Amino acid sequence: MSFYETLGKMWAKNNSLVCVGLDPDLSRIPDHLSGAKNPIFEFNRGIVDATADLVCAYKPQFAHYAAEGAETQLAMTIDYIHKTYPGVPVILDVKRGDIGSTAKMYAKEAFDRYGADALTVNPFLGGDSLTPFLENKDKGVVILCRTSNPGARDIQDLEVNGKKLYQVIAYKASYEWNYNSNVLLVVGATYPKELKEIRYIVGDIPLLVPGIGAQGGDTEAAVRNGLDSNGAGMIINSSRGIIYAGTGKNFADAARQAAEALRDEINRYR
Amino acid sequence: MSFYETLGKMWAKNNSLVCVGLDPDLSRIPDHLSGAKNPIFEFNRGIVDATADLVCAYKPQFAHYAAEGAETQLAMTIDYIHKTYPGVPVILDVKRGDIGSTAKMYAKEAFDRYGADALTVNPFLGGDSLTPFLENKDKGVVILCRTSNPGARDIQDLEVNGKKLYQVIAYKASYEWNYNSNVLLVVGATYPKELKEIRYIVGDIPLLVPGIGAQGGDTEAAVRNGLDSNGAGMIINSSRGIIYAGTGKNFADAARQAAEALRDEINRYR
Repeated sequence: MSFYETLGKMWAKNNSLVCVGLDPDLSRIPDHLSGAKNPIFEFNRGIVDATADLVCAYKPQFAHYAAEGAETQLAMTIDYIHKTYPGVPVILDVKRGDIGSTAKMYAKEAFDRYGADALTVNPFLGGDSLTPFLENKDKGVVILCRTSNPGARDIQDLEVNGKKLYQVIAYKASYEWNYNSNVLLVVGATYPKELKEIRYIVGDIPLLVPGIGAQGGDTEAAVRNGLDSNGAGMIINSSRGIIYAGTGKNFADAARQAAEALRDEINRYR
Repeated sequence: MSFYETLGKMWAKNNSLVCVGLDPDLSRIPDHLSGAKNPIFEFNRGIVDATADLVCAYKPQFAHYAAEGAETQLAMTIDYIHKTYPGVPVILDVKRGDIGSTAKMYAKEAFDRYGADALTVNPFLGGDSLTPFLENKDKGVVILCRTSNPGARDIQDLEVNGKKLYQVIAYKASYEWNYNSNVLLVVGATYPKELKEIRYIVGDIPLLVPGIGAQGGDTEAAVRNGLDSNGAGMIINSSRGIIYAGTGKNFADAARQAAEALRDEINRYR
């Protein structure tokens, strides 16, 4: 099944555009888990069990595992999601970008080692750096277009022949790179105007939208500007706002409440 | 000691601009090592022992370890270089690029977990995504500017107000991002004209130059166009051309010969 199909089924089944970002931070994991053999995995499992019927996807952010030497717990987390909640896709947020021969190794890492359903990539190295990912027809390739951080302006907003660089990326993604119908784009919720422009350029290509919650993005503006022609088309990510909604033993319940509230808020504007 | 100082000492001590890329590929490691407990580390150790007096730096490429689940062997390799050949810097080629809070985790990974002396980063997310790396005054931050692959043209050559994007990156790197004197730039040997332009823009900022050897870059053109005002300023990387120069039990000797030949060839044009 293609990533678009997998995602479409989950949008419908859970009536949700919410993606929970699995960005565990050992300093913020509840005390009762910190002594566990695999505290990051245990934390993630609690969050996943509490939210799997409320989301369209999960997105583990690689740095949070790499900084702690927790690659095994990352693999365990993805495996757990696939076995326990089949059909819920996992987007590995690694932002890879390298020359072709190296990109092949990164594709092997994301798809073979970790079994991710999609990954994030950086387009700065150009089309040939994306090919080793794009040729995996059943996997999603989520290309950075307009990121959620303030510094996104520095490079992504530079004007190229009357267009902004992020608009050029959106055109290339739609018309050059999506030959296997497996491209998605990252567009930050913190920039609703740009989100609208990009949606206009790319048609119904799904958008991964970070920046809600801790980063300050406005949910209503993001949803109204980012929906596709079917009232879906968005993977709206919240990490800290959901996984750290509670701090003690009830962290999972608190995460469920936060995820449910976000799902309902989003659905009000669809 | 700053990364510039560390590098400058090694340029002088070994009279070499050669960087050996430690990109181990399990399918190409000599048979007699493939049964070892840590075959990647053993291979790297052989290469390092054979070349440490001929190089100015080593550059392990992260994907080659990540694809095999060999993070421990990557850490062992960097640790071995530091303990056995103190003063030889290690550049971790990870091409990180993410929002600030995530970039902090990546800085922790590169500098605390792996003890790298420098890392490569992607500038697409802008200045604030580089800050968590740049604020480590003693570490080198090697920013992608004009990469060695054919697709580099797709985005990096786009024209922005009469300049190419890679030229804009070179200006920003020199005048906005180098406040701690720890910035370097990646410029592919496969594009000698661009190398010359970038050297003109950035003055004596050191350049990491991949693309010699397997990728087809011309050594003479790269050296003549890339030297700084002191006849140094370059970290010229070769990976496959050195580490796979031989295939059997004498792989390390063959690597030494290849590294020595490259060092001498480079030095002829300095």
